[in-house]
Amino acid sequence: MAEKILLAAVSILSACQQSYFALQVGMARFKYKVIPPAVTGSPEFERIFRAQQNCVEFYPIFVVTLWIAGLYFNQGLAACLGLAYMYARHLYFWGYSEASNRRIIGLKWSVGILALLIVLGTLGIANSFLDEYLDLNLVKLLRWHF
Amino acid sequence: MAEKILLAAVSILSACQQSYFALQVGMARFKYKVIPPAVTGSPEFERIFRAQQNCVEFYPIFVVTLWIAGLYFNQGLAACLGLAYMYARHLYFWGYSEASNRRIIGLKWSVGILALLIVLGTLGIANSFLDEYLDLNLVKLLRWHF
Amino acid sequence: MAEKILLAAVSILSACQQSYFALQVGMARFKYKVIPPAVTGSPEFERIFRAQQNCVEFYPIFVVTLWIAGLYFNQGLAACLGLAYMYARHLYFWGYSEASNRRIIGLKWSVGILALLIVLGTLGIANSFLDEYLDLNLVKLLRWHF
Repeated sequence: MAEKILLAAVSILSACQQSYFALQVGMARFKYKVIPPAVTGSPEFERIFRAQQNCVEFYPIFVVTLWIAGLYFNQGLAACLGLAYMYARHLYFWGYSEASNRRIIGLKWSVGILALLIVLGTLGIANSFLDEYLDLNLVKLLRWHF
Repeated sequence: MAEKILLAAVSILSACQQSYFALQVGMARFKYKVIPPAVTGSPEFERIFRAQQNCVEFYPIFVVTLWIAGLYFNQGLAACLGLAYMYARHLYFWGYSEASNRRIIGLKWSVGILALLIVLGTLGIANSFLDEYLDLNLVKLLRWHF
Repeated sequence: MAEKILLAAVSILSACQQSYFALQVGMARFKYKVIPPAVTGSPEFERIFRAQQNCVEFYPIFVVTLWIAGLYFNQGLAACLGLAYMYARHLYFWGYSEASNRRIIGLKWSVGILALLIVLGTLGIANSFLDEYLDLNLVKLLRWHF
């Protein structure tokens, strides 16, 4: 359990953030009088809704890459990147809710961090493959030399 | 594996439920003649579609909190809450498909159960942190006293 | 870790595929001049957008069933089915982006593979239940006989 606790903590925090975004959409429905099941009618509501939808789309990708990078590369680094991703999503959501072009910075950061998590996860898996099938652990080898 | 089997069983059941909701949307497309890629045109279809979309949005949050509450707090309790969440989603989906305001009860229950899972998960993680870094296991301590 | 490495590898590949689909939607926005937050206006864009949305809806279901089938039934088989699912999603996405009725083949394959993963996961969980609570391991029993 200890080798996953930071990942679990970041995951539950990000689950709270996703719930919070969903709540904001619900509140925007009231504020801009968009009656369910409609999702159009007010540009302000549409921006908040699209911002949340984009976060929803990327959330499972984020969780998968966070855990794989954390389990196969390094838990602490993955957890820090996870927090950074959450902050980028925060910027994205509130930027987008103000104006469409203010979503760009948060989007770029969140995609960049996600790409980094994918790279770390891939390296970790590749290392585990070598370790498992060729008995060659590059991470340990590197630690030995530095 | 045994400490996760109830969580795995609830997860696969909920995956079936999500697939079932998606199937209902596909059938509603035929019934109300909403040609892909359109998602508007018939209020009945739109309600079913929005009901499913809302379930989709919350599904990854549910899975993450179910597993964390199950692994770090108590598997049996988390699995029971998971089944309750599925039932709430069932009420929500069929309520929403009949009328927009009939979605409220299922939504409130599902959000409440999700909040409870988040609280349990957070408590479990907090306890594991204390156990790991301060050598203080509150759950064991409480069990000792009661 | 070794009993999950193929599942982790398929998961990270599928995360890349999902990111790639999301990127295609972003590029289609530019190509067909659909200004955010709008998601309608061009039939070509709408098809690409709906194709990606459908993949997004099924992604958490896929990840959950992949891991449960892999952990409780057989990792190698689950990983192969995972790759087949990704290929079916590839056919679906590009078929749908060309014409609505060209999405059918990929959709049928992806749903079929998902159903198979659910069946394998359910069998694996059922076997673990018997093993855990009745001390009866059917998989081992079958291996013994064949």
